[in-house]
Parts: sequence; C-alpha cells; structure tokens
Amino acid sequence: MGVAGLSIDKAQGGETTVAVASVEPLLKLSADAMAAVNELILSKAGSDVELIPEISNYLVNAGGKRLRPMLTIASAEMFGYRGDAHIRLATAVEFMHTATLLHDDVVDESDMRRARATARRIWGNQASVLVGDFLLGQAFRLMVDVGSLDALDVLSTAASVIAEGEVWQLSASRSMETTKADYEAVIRAKTAALFSAAAEMGPIITGASERERQALRTYGDTLGMAFQLVDDALDYGGSAASLGKNVGDDFREGKVTLPVIFAYRDGDDQDRAFWKAAIEEGRNDDAALASAIERLERTGAVEKTVSEARLYGETARTALAELPEGPWRDALDQVVGFCISRVV
Amino acid sequence: MGVAGLSIDKAQGGETTVAVASVEPLLKLSADAMAAVNELILSKAGSDVELIPEISNYLVNAGGKRLRPMLTIASAEMFGYRGDAHIRLATAVEFMHTATLLHDDVVDESDMRRARATARRIWGNQASVLVGDFLLGQAFRLMVDVGSLDALDVLSTAASVIAEGEVWQLSASRSMETTKADYEAVIRAKTAALFSAAAEMGPIITGASERERQALRTYGDTLGMAFQLVDDALDYGGSAASLGKNVGDDFREGKVTLPVIFAYRDGDDQDRAFWKAAIEEGRNDDAALASAIERLERTGAVEKTVSEARLYGETARTALAELPEGPWRDALDQVVGFCISRVV
Repeated sequence: MGVAGLSIDKAQGGETTVAVASVEPLLKLSADAMAAVNELILSKAGSDVELIPEISNYLVNAGGKRLRPMLTIASAEMFGYRGDAHIRLATAVEFMHTATLLHDDVVDESDMRRARATARRIWGNQASVLVGDFLLGQAFRLMVDVGSLDALDVLSTAASVIAEGEVWQLSASRSMETTKADYEAVIRAKTAALFSAAAEMGPIITGASERERQALRTYGDTLGMAFQLVDDALDYGGSAASLGKNVGDDFREGKVTLPVIFAYRDGDDQDRAFWKAAIEEGRNDDAALASAIERLERTGAVEKTVSEARLYGETARTALAELPEGPWRDALDQVVGFCISRVV
Repeated sequence: MGVAGLSIDKAQGGETTVAVASVEPLLKLSADAMAAVNELILSKAGSDVELIPEISNYLVNAGGKRLRPMLTIASAEMFGYRGDAHIRLATAVEFMHTATLLHDDVVDESDMRRARATARRIWGNQASVLVGDFLLGQAFRLMVDVGSLDALDVLSTAASVIAEGEVWQLSASRSMETTKADYEAVIRAKTAALFSAAAEMGPIITGASERERQALRTYGDTLGMAFQLVDDALDYGGSAASLGKNVGDDFREGKVTLPVIFAYRDGDDQDRAFWKAAIEEGRNDDAALASAIERLERTGAVEKTVSEARLYGETARTALAELPEGPWRDALDQVVGFCISRVV
C-alpha cells in the first residue's frame, strides 16, 4: 500500500496514474449485495401505516454512501461467504443508523442533513421519534431472523453504547471542561461502536478466527473514529454543499468537538474566554462563528484534528494486515484514505 | 371463580367476606421475584453517565404496579420454573415499557404521568428520547443474555408492532373517520402487544405446550385490551388523583378513543358537529371538555366502553382454563377483575 490517502491505479496500457483514495472499489465489489440490501430496506420499512414507508423512503433516497452496511458485506465476503445472512445484518445495521439519525435530529433540533430538510422538519419530532423506534424494532427482528446470538450480542450492545454516548454528549455538550480523552470516549460510543459492530458481523457469521474478528473490530472502531473526527473538522472547514450540513452547526449547538478542545487548550487567555462564552453561555451568532473559525485557524486546531484522524486511519490500515489478501481487503484499505481525504 | 370483578375470600375463622378483585394475590406471589427484578432494573439502568441512572431511578420510583413484568414472572412460575431467565425477561419487558413511556411523553408533549411531572418536563425531550433508546438497548441485551431466540423473536416483534401502532395513532389521531375496528387495531398494537409478549415469556422458557403458550398469549392480549379501554374511560371519568393523569388529557391532545367513537356514532347531528370541531379543528378548551363529558354521559359512551372492556376481560379469564390450576392461575384471574374495577 502506498502513501495514506493515495493509491496507485494501473490504467489500461500499463501507464501508472496516481488517484486519490476512493470508495469506488468497495462500491463496485459490493454493488450486487447492496442492491439486495436496498430491496430489503424497502421491504422491511414497509407498513400499512403510510407515514412509515413515506419517511423511510425519504431517508433511503437521501443517499449517503451506506458505509456501515458495506462494512458488513465486505467483512463477510472477504471470507468467501455465500449465504444471505450478511444482507439481513447489513440491513439491520443501516436501520440502526437511520433510527439514530432520526432521533439525533430531534435531539439536536436539526433542520438540514446531507443538504436536505430533515425528517423532523417535514413530519415533526413525533413521527421522527416513533419511526426511529419502528426501524430499531425491525433491525432486531432481522437479527433474530439470522439467528446468531453472537451477532445479536454485538449489535444490541452497540445500541446501548450509542445511546449512552449520546446522553453523555448531551450532559457534557456545554462544558469547556471536556478533555480530549472525554471526547474520544463519546465518539467511540456514538460513532465508532456501530462501525465496529458492522465490521464484526462478517467474521461472526463466517466463523473466522478470533484474530480476524479482532482485526475487523479494530478496523471498524478506528475507521469510525477517523470518520467522526473528519466530520468535526469539516463542520468548521468544509462547505455546506460538499458536506450536506451547514458549517458551524456544531458550534451553534454548543457542541464541544475536538477542534474546539484543541483551540481552547492551545489558545491564549482571550481565546479561552471566547470559547467559554461561546460554548457555555451560548454566544454563538454568526459574528461569533467567524471569530471561532479565525481562532481555530490561528491555533491550528483543525489541522491537529485531521492529524488525529490520520493516526486512527493508520491503525485501521494496519489492522487489515491480519485479514485475507484480495480485492476486498484492498477496497477496505482505500476506504480509510477516502474518509480522510474528504477534508484535504 | 365468582362474578366478574368480585372474588370470595375465606377469612380466618371460616367466615366469608366478599372483596373487590385485587392485584394483591399476584403482588404477594411474585414479591420475591419482583424484588430481584427491581434489583436488576437498578443495576442495568446504571451507567457512568449520571443522567441515565438519575432519570431511570426517577421512573423506577414513580411506582406503578409493574403489571407487565409480573405477567412474565407469573407465566413462568405457574409452570414451576426455578431458573432466573424470567427475572431477566421481566426486566427487559419493563425496560421496553419504560422506553415507550419516555418516548410517548415526548410525542404527546405530556407534563404529568401518574400524578408526577414527566421526565421530559424535568430533563427535557432530548434526554427522554436518548434514555429511552438506552433502555431499549439494555432490554435487548438482557434478552440476548437469556439466549432464547424464540423470546427474542416475540419481544422484538412486539417492539416493532408497538411503534407501528403509535405512528398509526399519530396519523389518525385527529380524524373522526376512525372506526371502532381501526381503534382496536391501534390499541392491540400499542398496548396489548406488550402484555401478550410478556405473558408469552413463561411458556417459552419453560417449554410449555403450544396450547398453553397460545392461552397465555390470548390472556395477555385481551387483558391489555381491557386495560387500555378502562384507561380510555378513566380519561373522561376518573379523578386526576386516582388515575395520576389529568382528566381530559386525551381530549386535549385530540386523541380519538373508544368513548369518543361511541359518542360520535350514537349521537345526533349536533353531537357529531361538536366532535368534529373538537377533534379535527382543535376546539378543546375547558368549556369544550365539560361539553364533551356531558355528551359522553348522555350517549352512554363511557359505559359502552367499559362493557367492551368487560368482554375482553371475560375472554382473558376463559383463556386461563387451559393453564395449570393453582394460586398463580387464580391470581391472574383476579388481575382481570382488578383492571376493570379501576373504573367502577
């Protein structure tokens, strides 16, 4: 493997081109399986209660790369799996993720996600809470259907851990006492836990070795950490169009993320006073956001956050060494670079 | 067994007294098991994230009779069960119920439940949504711990069905087109499904016959229906103190319940105009509530609702005939009368 974030593609005719690491190889390899996942999503999100398929279809069409269910597909097919349990587990993973998004948007009072109005904006908080509950129930039914208690154990634990992380973030969101370690514990729970569980499904249903299972757990966990940190960086750096959310959303919601923790830690007294006022007292209007971005740049806080993401990415790539060589492993390697290259 | 709602107790000395059917026998029989359930609730609702045990303890102390987990205990112990899986499943059932209450209060914007402020009133909607999600995750972990795919199947299906019923109620709540059959389908999903699943746990883990399993499923389902219909009647008839919720809550939320369906169906043109204005256009102030109660009384709508509850109660009692004779069966019989006697 080459430099992080880069991969060498041999084009036809033998000439060598350098391409930015891409999610394309994984998308191609998993295309058939993901078509089956899509079909199952639509079928299991069906209901005579019209509002349920209405909201579900809206979310399905919202796009997104479906990274989490693809991890489940990859982690099974890289061991030569030929059944269909991975389709059901990947669907369960996507439902868990969608339920979390529905509830998160209610909790954060978000109006936009991926450049579209959120479900709660269109159908209200009530429907978002309840349809999220429905999808969570359907996720568990799919797991039960597969019949692996081991898979159920991993995913139900992830469900608790995710919610616990969200509650923690809710209680701590407005305190500048939050440390880097605190924050990493939160995102490990609220984001990395599902990536990790998704990647663990393959070795569970294929009966891969404990070493391989551990490797995929680590890959998912560290990829999830890198993914979230890049997201945090993008909230202060990317454009709303590329990210599909508004720059400064985290800031306006009073969320302490790693860029803010670095800017506070490495800033001067004036910086610290600014962050306390912004986060703890809610002084977060547009002028404050502009000042926040200036302070983040001056302290190098966004770059430091991306560096942290790169470190997690390196761990993810290293974990892959334990897994069977082949196109699936190569595709998972490229995904790491892709996640990080979103920001650079 | 005697007349519905009544039971004959032989007091010391042989004299015979007539007592209103009571939940006391079930409370006594299940006291030890329920103490273990209580302990497990506190342990599994524990977390380093302080807000979680804080809200959980508040809900645990809110009281309530814990009817649902007691059904799980009874349905296992009536077959002589001596393990501890029923404790874990009963705790899972109570967590599912608590998660539903937390989310319901957000959906209904309720400020009071059981004569106390709701969690969302004290800690906000955000915490209520997330702590509900956490408890749901913990419920599934407890089920996985027990290791019965059959139990997991029944409870995860109930989780989906409950949410589906709630969404249905949300979409239909403000329409006077709702029929009695529509409404019964909703409460079968949102209330009876969990009663039924709770009562089915015992036969599953004890390996009772399919006939016994069906009998307990029917008992739970019809007891749940009776319970909900009595609740609906109480919303227009009981006092806030006895019920712990405010009279007219359903009315003010624009909820079409069976008393309203009867009053609309059996009323005159003026009544129908009144109900349309109240439910569909939100004319539901205190004066409207007084008028609603007068119309419900005149059309006998509350009594008709209680009669329906009695019919369900009779089916519940009949189902018990398939089950082993003994104190547990007698206690479950009394519970039926107790649920209905709340209103008379």
